[in-house]
Amino acid sequence: MTDTAELPPDPDDDDSTPPGWLSEGELLDAREMLPIVYVNVVPVRTAADGSITEVGLLLRADDDAVSRALVAGRVLYHETIRDALRRNLEKDLGSVAMPRLPMNPTPFSIAEYFPTPGVSEFHDTRQHAIALSYVVPVDGFCEPSQNALDIVWLSPEEAAGANIAQQMMGGQDVLLRRALAYCGVLP
Amino acid sequence: MTDTAELPPDPDDDDSTPPGWLSEGELLDAREMLPIVYVNVVPVRTAADGSITEVGLLLRADDDAVSRALVAGRVLYHETIRDALRRNLEKDLGSVAMPRLPMNPTPFSIAEYFPTPGVSEFHDTRQHAIALSYVVPVDGFCEPSQNALDIVWLSPEEAAGANIAQQMMGGQDVLLRRALAYCGVLP
Amino acid sequence: MTDTAELPPDPDDDDSTPPGWLSEGELLDAREMLPIVYVNVVPVRTAADGSITEVGLLLRADDDAVSRALVAGRVLYHETIRDALRRNLEKDLGSVAMPRLPMNPTPFSIAEYFPTPGVSEFHDTRQHAIALSYVVPVDGFCEPSQNALDIVWLSPEEAAGANIAQQMMGGQDVLLRRALAYCGVLP
Amino acid sequence: MTDTAELPPDPDDDDSTPPGWLSEGELLDAREMLPIVYVNVVPVRTAADGSITEVGLLLRADDDAVSRALVAGRVLYHETIRDALRRNLEKDLGSVAMPRLPMNPTPFSIAEYFPTPGVSEFHDTRQHAIALSYVVPVDGFCEPSQNALDIVWLSPEEAAGANIAQQMMGGQDVLLRRALAYCGVLP
Repeated sequence: MTDTAELPPDPDDDDSTPPGWLSEGELLDAREMLPIVYVNVVPVRTAADGSITEVGLLLRADDDAVSRALVAGRVLYHETIRDALRRNLEKDLGSVAMPRLPMNPTPFSIAEYFPTPGVSEFHDTRQHAIALSYVVPVDGFCEPSQNALDIVWLSPEEAAGANIAQQMMGGQDVLLRRALAYCGVLP
Repeated sequence: MTDTAELPPDPDDDDSTPPGWLSEGELLDAREMLPIVYVNVVPVRTAADGSITEVGLLLRADDDAVSRALVAGRVLYHETIRDALRRNLEKDLGSVAMPRLPMNPTPFSIAEYFPTPGVSEFHDTRQHAIALSYVVPVDGFCEPSQNALDIVWLSPEEAAGANIAQQMMGGQDVLLRRALAYCGVLP
Repeated sequence: MTDTAELPPDPDDDDSTPPGWLSEGELLDAREMLPIVYVNVVPVRTAADGSITEVGLLLRADDDAVSRALVAGRVLYHETIRDALRRNLEKDLGSVAMPRLPMNPTPFSIAEYFPTPGVSEFHDTRQHAIALSYVVPVDGFCEPSQNALDIVWLSPEEAAGANIAQQMMGGQDVLLRRALAYCGVLP
Repeated sequence: MTDTAELPPDPDDDDSTPPGWLSEGELLDAREMLPIVYVNVVPVRTAADGSITEVGLLLRADDDAVSRALVAGRVLYHETIRDALRRNLEKDLGSVAMPRLPMNPTPFSIAEYFPTPGVSEFHDTRQHAIALSYVVPVDGFCEPSQNALDIVWLSPEEAAGANIAQQMMGGQDVLLRRALAYCGVLP
């Protein structure tokens, strides 16, 4: 986990919310009053036997540092979790990633991000976010959106390593290792 | 599931939130803009071998009808899910219920309540609520708060029956049957 | 659940085990001494959003009765669970069913079949079987093996109904309803 | 994980099986023909809020080395998983350990031990064992059976560390870390 705990800007905040919904200012107000619901997704490539062969991480350039991030975004008002998964996967991986959305919408874990460091393993200076977390296989071609420089595919061993952990923010490296443990590929 | 889909009033709304937090009016505003995070809990009694012997339901008198409800309430700003579970269990079952909070805070299911009927199995006229759902054994004495007439303990078979389902609102009967299926006690 | 609790003959027993492994007689002996490990699989069709649209059941003619069954078979000596899933899915659904094997080999439930009725919801006159149970989406064409007359695809509502339950043996209808509850499609 | 991959002797094998069941010789035969069903249990102490405070490991002296082990043992013929959990917890932790057996008998993971090293993360020279794995809180006093020198309670961080991993056999350190990740206490 890095010391710079602010998560990358959330593209939901300006352009992808339907007209008439929360303005940037209203969202800032709400963020000081209520926990905000997110989805966090670990995109993976799988072999024919179902086992995970690669983990996808977004490469981001924020200010002067490069960081790695999971697919993430808010669940909007009146949006189902399934729709939020689909929309945020498309936002971060493009429209031909062909994610296999889960049969069962129960998350494998919940990441609780607090604005105060140390309350949990997860930290987000902007808000108290409750992130429903999933592992989703993607079969298609992934292309980074304008919020990411690239999408990099790593072996599970690399992805769980200390090197990558140092480049992830807000505790997302912890969530990534939990995802790999859950799928039986923790080294 | 009953036709009267409005859930019982949420005691969080007036008195149990700390001073300085959302006023009733502000919460009404937020409810039209953001999904609100809840916990839903099925309280159970267990035998020495861990199996469920009884399910606890709150008995409520709303207007002129009597209804059954699960333990439920909001996750407040800057509150951990564990604390929200503890606080809402105490609010609905009293201070000596001795709930055994889960080792693993991942819910067994997520209930998505929408203000528009038919979007999912769950309906709440007031808001879009995302309820992290748990089954929690309680070992102590349970006494109803002022929001409930009584707490009634039923066998899993009774609790899953059509009679009880008709007295539950907003789809909570579906969540209850999922909980029993999850614990291997669906008849 | 039907009264005729014997499960259909297991094609593993005669022809699909490698040479040098358990003969039919040796397996009969082992079945009186040890629990036997099985996989039980609910094959499903899914929509683009991941939700289950159809459930596949094997149609079998045993003696003078017609029954419905889940995909099932033993885990062989030195076989991984993933390989057992793949082999048994191919045995029952053919070689072009294109099952999406799970990323995570943890079963959603364990069905404990006992030779004595009433010990659990599951009954198998031949043996004490411990069945690791999975829901597996299949994308390809399914053709029945010689052990089944047909593979029938039903809506989740039909599959969970009393009509179908009466045609399933050994308690597999209970396991099917648990699978649907787990995936959030129990009516 | 250590190089000496043989797991400690299983006390089930000689004395704790009922008369008339598998003799030692018969079990040796069965172990060359069939996967053998085990339970593996990580015993834990929990705080009032449900979170894990300590992990219990058995301290064993085998030949000239000292090792740490999880609670483990076979599921016997015609025994339910619940009964196997209770019996094996009592065998390894004594009769007043007061384990809280799970409401839901679905394991959090399956450990597949193979006699051939490298087939999976888990290795047992004696057999192909399929271990249904659980995390079980124990509230009472634990005393080692004659098969263990002691029961040692460690913090989750210590238990997941490299030092302890080196003293665990057959890959049980991997299972322990998966258990901690599952419960949200992986460091």
